[in-house]
Amino acid sequence: MFRECFDRLRGSGPLIHNITNYVTVNDVANVILACGASPIMADDEGEAEEITSLCQGLNLNIGTLNSRTVEAMEKAGRRAKSLGHPIVLDPVGAGASRLRTETARRLLREVSPTVIRGNISEIRALAGESARVRGVDASFADRVTEENLKEAVLLVKELSRQTGAIIAATGAIDLVADGERCFIIRNGRPQMGLVTGTGCQLSGMTAAFLAANPDKPLEAAAAAVCAMGLAGEIAVDGLRPGEGNAACRNRIIDAICCMDGEALEKGARYELG
Amino acid sequence: MFRECFDRLRGSGPLIHNITNYVTVNDVANVILACGASPIMADDEGEAEEITSLCQGLNLNIGTLNSRTVEAMEKAGRRAKSLGHPIVLDPVGAGASRLRTETARRLLREVSPTVIRGNISEIRALAGESARVRGVDASFADRVTEENLKEAVLLVKELSRQTGAIIAATGAIDLVADGERCFIIRNGRPQMGLVTGTGCQLSGMTAAFLAANPDKPLEAAAAAVCAMGLAGEIAVDGLRPGEGNAACRNRIIDAICCMDGEALEKGARYELG
Amino acid sequence: MFRECFDRLRGSGPLIHNITNYVTVNDVANVILACGASPIMADDEGEAEEITSLCQGLNLNIGTLNSRTVEAMEKAGRRAKSLGHPIVLDPVGAGASRLRTETARRLLREVSPTVIRGNISEIRALAGESARVRGVDASFADRVTEENLKEAVLLVKELSRQTGAIIAATGAIDLVADGERCFIIRNGRPQMGLVTGTGCQLSGMTAAFLAANPDKPLEAAAAAVCAMGLAGEIAVDGLRPGEGNAACRNRIIDAICCMDGEALEKGARYELG
Repeated sequence: MFRECFDRLRGSGPLIHNITNYVTVNDVANVILACGASPIMADDEGEAEEITSLCQGLNLNIGTLNSRTVEAMEKAGRRAKSLGHPIVLDPVGAGASRLRTETARRLLREVSPTVIRGNISEIRALAGESARVRGVDASFADRVTEENLKEAVLLVKELSRQTGAIIAATGAIDLVADGERCFIIRNGRPQMGLVTGTGCQLSGMTAAFLAANPDKPLEAAAAAVCAMGLAGEIAVDGLRPGEGNAACRNRIIDAICCMDGEALEKGARYELG
Repeated sequence: MFRECFDRLRGSGPLIHNITNYVTVNDVANVILACGASPIMADDEGEAEEITSLCQGLNLNIGTLNSRTVEAMEKAGRRAKSLGHPIVLDPVGAGASRLRTETARRLLREVSPTVIRGNISEIRALAGESARVRGVDASFADRVTEENLKEAVLLVKELSRQTGAIIAATGAIDLVADGERCFIIRNGRPQMGLVTGTGCQLSGMTAAFLAANPDKPLEAAAAAVCAMGLAGEIAVDGLRPGEGNAACRNRIIDAICCMDGEALEKGARYELG
Repeated sequence: MFRECFDRLRGSGPLIHNITNYVTVNDVANVILACGASPIMADDEGEAEEITSLCQGLNLNIGTLNSRTVEAMEKAGRRAKSLGHPIVLDPVGAGASRLRTETARRLLREVSPTVIRGNISEIRALAGESARVRGVDASFADRVTEENLKEAVLLVKELSRQTGAIIAATGAIDLVADGERCFIIRNGRPQMGLVTGTGCQLSGMTAAFLAANPDKPLEAAAAAVCAMGLAGEIAVDGLRPGEGNAACRNRIIDAICCMDGEALEKGARYELG
């Protein structure tokens, strides 16, 4: 199934509009190219709608948000929504400042993202005004582990129902869920946390997978998450003595570039929950 | 001839002012260092003129333009023009949005760039208001191939006469032309298209070659184009199994860093048309 | 002593708030991760104070300053100061434009940085309104060499007394001084100058070392400077034929990632002056 998702992506080469942070933007562009799509970065209000109209998917990331780019995100998002394009929202740092939490919530409300891709804490902060989630907050440690997996799966399904978006909560164990089904994914390596921007890259790549597979967004998002995890395994396991996070950063993108549908299908480690 | 252009660049180490996009800016800075020049990035209106006055060349790139930086580009451009500094305009995405097309045209009008460096579609969009080019538009496919080469050479010469700038239209075959002469360049590899920013890097490097060779701008621009293509060949041909576009990105800059005038002269593949 | 500084950093993993330039920001984030800390980039006025309150250190870099980010720097800086967080000011290009010189001076005045990290020219420009330094300007060449070392040490101590900050003036020979003591550091390689952003990376890493060693800021800053120089030695000495500044850029970050307190202690080459 993931094989087909990836083959379609490489076969169609969708154009992805990104309004993303300036920290990791180069890696996002290169990973989008690596997976077979093409990136466009354009964050000015004066062209956001026009650019997104040329594209097949939109990736919104608030990692270095400012008042100017937030307006552009909203405009691009509304246009993409009206055109039926898939939209990924990456609520970087939601919960860390009022500005981020409120911006993420405003985007959630205004653009109805197809997928929210973040760590579980960010996603909970984003959805946190709901009484049901707030209640869970007190008793549920953020990190997804084998011990709390069952509760975590229920939580992300609930978050999906609340937000109307597929939830891709990534961490040691990745969960990709709609209201009914949850992919529990065990690809990846802890050392990926030493590379800035693997989450941002994944969000961009998720938009590409969605654009190429509009009929099955849950599978497409799960395929993107498995691909990034598998690339991390290849990158980390291939490190030589003296190599560190910079080598790892390059190898992750290279691994995506060299990956095909078959390798993804074979390397993906997941179950449905 | 290209040997001398490159030797002069390495010998003089000009300072290049860049107002460029945040996607590929780090690679632009590193490739400018790699070819023997020094980069300064400064995009605030409040210092654009002062900074460009310290420099010997200016590189304007609208890849992530916004209202703030466009003003700075215009101010820096007017000052550079009044000082007689070479100016490169990279009209990234001209034709993709009104904002980009109009900004590129405004910069063309206001700053009179020495060289316009882009793909052929961008350059045609930039010059497109002219009736003569519009006429060509209908019958002439954008991509330069062996089949349409003769027409393409006539077109870029015409575009040069119209704009008053040297045209560096890069793609599978690169054309660098003024109104009279055209360098037809066959360096490069298709895989360079998987690396974000090789065009942006080339624009920055072109400004450096121009600054070091003010008496022969056409040759300087052609030398820069050959150098980037040759670097791409070295990078792509040196890829090992498992390596992809991230490795390629690093190797292109490394290849420029290790290249000298002799290697460029020997590796350049061009004819005059 | 440096061993302990680094061990504490790896043991505590402080969170560092960076308002820095978009040219080298990705490398700054990755080197902060490589040395054991965590980076947050946030430059909007609307969240600068809130974000810095979550962190243990602040890194302000004016490399691509604009009116928007300067306000955020000042707000974050005042808050960090009121919280007793260490602050690094990197006055990139002070002296090159009025905007940069004045901004650097304003930040010096308003936020009282713990450390000023720059090249000697930038630091002198920053402090240059003082009659005592202006007097030195006429007779003292900027570059620190074995010949003028004694005078240079006196100068940086004097600059430290004037500014109230530890001075980390880096170049062929690095000097890290408060008003009384000066570390004279001979780590590093000239080829590091071909990699954009080694200075920016060092400023970010200095903030991390300071955050983990609040009781001995002079030693912490000197340890960071030695670590970067040592990483440069490892990177440059490990270059293979055909490799250049892009490989070097990656290897510097990798070398920090693989370095520990013991290696730093052993590789640091300094004397007190």
